[in-house]
Amino acid sequence: MSRPRPRDEALGVAVLGMGNVGTEVVRIMHEHADELRQRIGRALELRGVAVRDPHRHRGIPAELLTTDPAALIARPDVDLVVEVIGGIDPARRLILAALCAGKSVVTANKALLADYTGELAAAAENHRADLYFEAAVAGAIPVVRPLIQSLSGDRVHRVTGIVNGTSNFILSAMDHSGASYTEMLAEAQRLGFAEADPSADVEGFDGAAKAAILASLAFHTRVTANVVYREGMSRITAAEFRTAAELDCTVKMLAVSERVDAGPGEPGPGEGGKERVSVRVHPALIPRTHPLAGVDGAFNAVVVEAQNAGRLMFYGQGAGGAPTASAVMGDLVMAARNKVYGGRAPRESVYAELPIAPIGDALTRHVLSLTVSDRAGALAAVAGEFASRGVSIATVHQQLARAEAQLTVVTHRARESVLGEIAAALAELDSVTSVTSVLRLEGTEE
Amino acid sequence: MSRPRPRDEALGVAVLGMGNVGTEVVRIMHEHADELRQRIGRALELRGVAVRDPHRHRGIPAELLTTDPAALIARPDVDLVVEVIGGIDPARRLILAALCAGKSVVTANKALLADYTGELAAAAENHRADLYFEAAVAGAIPVVRPLIQSLSGDRVHRVTGIVNGTSNFILSAMDHSGASYTEMLAEAQRLGFAEADPSADVEGFDGAAKAAILASLAFHTRVTANVVYREGMSRITAAEFRTAAELDCTVKMLAVSERVDAGPGEPGPGEGGKERVSVRVHPALIPRTHPLAGVDGAFNAVVVEAQNAGRLMFYGQGAGGAPTASAVMGDLVMAARNKVYGGRAPRESVYAELPIAPIGDALTRHVLSLTVSDRAGALAAVAGEFASRGVSIATVHQQLARAEAQLTVVTHRARESVLGEIAAALAELDSVTSVTSVLRLEGTEE
Repeated sequence: MSRPRPRDEALGVAVLGMGNVGTEVVRIMHEHADELRQRIGRALELRGVAVRDPHRHRGIPAELLTTDPAALIARPDVDLVVEVIGGIDPARRLILAALCAGKSVVTANKALLADYTGELAAAAENHRADLYFEAAVAGAIPVVRPLIQSLSGDRVHRVTGIVNGTSNFILSAMDHSGASYTEMLAEAQRLGFAEADPSADVEGFDGAAKAAILASLAFHTRVTANVVYREGMSRITAAEFRTAAELDCTVKMLAVSERVDAGPGEPGPGEGGKERVSVRVHPALIPRTHPLAGVDGAFNAVVVEAQNAGRLMFYGQGAGGAPTASAVMGDLVMAARNKVYGGRAPRESVYAELPIAPIGDALTRHVLSLTVSDRAGALAAVAGEFASRGVSIATVHQQLARAEAQLTVVTHRARESVLGEIAAALAELDSVTSVTSVLRLEGTEE
Repeated sequence: MSRPRPRDEALGVAVLGMGNVGTEVVRIMHEHADELRQRIGRALELRGVAVRDPHRHRGIPAELLTTDPAALIARPDVDLVVEVIGGIDPARRLILAALCAGKSVVTANKALLADYTGELAAAAENHRADLYFEAAVAGAIPVVRPLIQSLSGDRVHRVTGIVNGTSNFILSAMDHSGASYTEMLAEAQRLGFAEADPSADVEGFDGAAKAAILASLAFHTRVTANVVYREGMSRITAAEFRTAAELDCTVKMLAVSERVDAGPGEPGPGEGGKERVSVRVHPALIPRTHPLAGVDGAFNAVVVEAQNAGRLMFYGQGAGGAPTASAVMGDLVMAARNKVYGGRAPRESVYAELPIAPIGDALTRHVLSLTVSDRAGALAAVAGEFASRGVSIATVHQQLARAEAQLTVVTHRARESVLGEIAAALAELDSVTSVTSVLRLEGTEE
C-alpha cells in the first residue's frame, strides 16, 4: 500500500511506455493540467515515464524518464499507473505489481486483457485498486464502459464490431476500387495503415483479442482469445465483392459474439440446457443498409443488440495516439476521482460462465457461389443438397458466363457444421464445376 | 438515513410511476431477478409502486401498489428509488426526499434535470446518495455516462444530437415522401408517433431540455432549458427539402451545443477572454454524408466531437418503454452495486461556468434561398450584401423558374446576427422578389 498522503496533495501518475499513446497521454496531462485538476478535485502530477531508451524522448524533462518501470511503480508518491507498453510481459508483471501495491491501473493492452483479465481483476479486487481498460477495444469509442455499466440491467444478445482499422481500410478500398486484396494491402502499407507484417490485423489476431474482451463483458463470462474462432481476410477476392454488390451487400471483417439460440428444427441450446456463446472473427457479407456497412476506412464501430435496448451503435476512431489517449485519460480521471472521493471501479462480472460453442454449432447465414455446367439439372441437384439437410434457401441468383452459369445461393440461418457438409457435397455433384466461394452473411435476422 | 440492514439482505426498490417505462422496469426486475442478483451481489426486491389509480394496474400484486409515494420512499426497507413520473412536481419533491434520506435515485426525468440538476446533485452529495439519469437523454443510448466518464479526460468541442424521435419521424417522412409538414404530422399522429398536441416535440421544448443536460455534461457548466435557443420545425416546407436535396443534404431537427470560437476576422471569445457555449435546438440542413443524415424515423443519435477522441457517434432507440427501461435498469444496477461495494456515482462537475452565448453570436453556416427578378444584376447585388459584412460565400446555385430565378446561397461560418442583417438587407434589394428560406447548415467544417 502507498503511504497515506495529505488530501490536497497531487495524485502521482506513472506512465509505462512512450509510444504513440503514451506520448499523447503525457501531452494531455500537461496541456490540460488545470481542467483535469478541476474535474478530479486534485492535480495529476507526472512522476515518471518508463521507456526503453531515454535518449529517444527529448520532449520531456530527462529526470522524468526511467528505464526501471518496477522502481517507478514502487515509488510511494505514485498512485496511478498508465500501462501503454503492450504485449504480455513485462506489462502483466508490472500491472500486477502496481495493483498489489494498491495503485490503480489504466491499460490499453488488449492482448493482455484478452488472456489475463481474471488474474488482473482478482489482484485489483484483493488490494482495493481499480483496473480500467476502455482503450483496449475500439480506441476512443466508449464501448467497454457502456457494456459494463449502461447495459448491466439488460440482456445482450449479440455484439458485432468492426474493431480493426487496418483490415477495414483494406476492405473499404477493395469495395470502392474493385481492386484485389494484394493491391490494396500494398496501398495500405504504403500509406502507413498496415504493418510490413500485416498478419495481426488481416488474420484476425487483433480482432480476436478484442472479441474476447467484448464477449466477456457482454455475457458475464470469461472468454479468452484462444477460444475465439478466427478466419483471415486475405482470401477475399474482387469477385466476392462483385457478388456482394449484386446482393446489395459489402464485405467487412467482423468480430461477432452472440448467444447461440436454437433455430427452428434445430437442437436446443448446449448440453444441460445451458446457453452457449459463439465468438468469432471473420470476413462476412453485410447488407448495405446495415449501420456497419457505412463504416469506412480506419474507423471502428460496435453494434450491440440487447433485449430491451434494441440495437445500439457506437462509432468513432478505433486507433491512433490521440483517440486512444482520450479513452486512457477518461479512465485515468475516473480512477483518480475514486482515489479522491472513495469510489471503486465496477468489479469483474463472470458469474454466467457460459460455455463457448464450437464454430460448427454457430447459427449463421451463408452465401455460396457455384459454377455449374448443366444448367437444366444443376439447380434441382443443388437445392436437393440443402433440402435433404434441412437448410432453407432464401434466394438463388443465376448468371450466365460463356457455357457455364454462376449460381449464388443465400441460405437462412443454419448450423455451420451442416453448411460445411453441404459445401462438400455440392463440390461432388456432376453438374457443379466448382464451389468458388463460401461466405457468411451477418447483420440480417432471417 | 435508512437503518443498517444485514449485508446479504435484498436491496429494496421503490418505483414511482407505472407508465410505459415503469411497467417495463417492473417487468425486467421480475423476469431477470436472478441475473440482476448475480450482477449486483444482492437481490433487488420491489417494495412498492406508486401510482395514481391502483385499479388500473392489475398486472402486479395489489399490496405492492400505493397512492402515497412519499410514504413508500420513507420505508426503511427502501434503498433505491426509480422516478418515472415525469414533470417537475411532485417528482422534484419526491426525489429530494429520497436523496435526503440517503436513498439513491434513478430518474428518466429530462424536464426536471434540465432545470434542477444543481439542487438534486447537491442533495445527493450532502447525503451520500447517488443520482443517475442515463435514461433522461436519448432513451437506451448510453450518452450521459460516456460524457461524464469516458470523455472526462478530453475536451469536448461540440455535441450534435437527434434527440427527439417524433420530430425526426416527421422530417424523415417528409424527406422520403416529398409531402408537407402538415400531412406528415397527421400521419405521425395516426401512427401514434406524435401527440394530439405535438408542440413539446415539434417546437423543440423536449429537445431543449435534453440539449441543456448534454451541454451541462459536455462543458462542465450548468445549462438550464430556459437559456437554450429554440426554433420549431413546423415552418419547414417541401420546397426546403428539395433545396436540401439539390445541395446533397437533408433536413434534421438538431440539438447543438458547442464552444463558441472566433472565426477568421471575428472578435474573440466572450468578455474577459472567457470561452462561451452556444446551445440551440432548430431544424438545419446536414450533408447526406454526415452520420446523422442516415438516422431515420424514431431513432436517436448523438455525435460528440472532442479534441482527442475526434468524432464519436452513439445511435439507437431514443424512446419507448423497453429501451428507456434498459437505461434505467443499468443505472439501477450501478446504484445497487454502489450500495453493496461502497462505490459512488460521479459528482456533478460544473467548475467551468462558461457563459451562454446569445444566438446572435453563434457561428453557423447558412443556406439562403431567394427569388430574383433581374437575373443580370441580382447576383452582383446579392453578393455585395454578403461581402460588405465580411461574410464569405461558399457556393451559389441558380435555377430558372418562369420569368424569375431561384438563387440558393451557401455561406461559410459567420455570426448569426450578421446573417440576420444580410437577410433583411437582401429583402430590400430591388432585384430580389423575396427571401423564401433561411436555414442553418450544420455538420460541415468550412
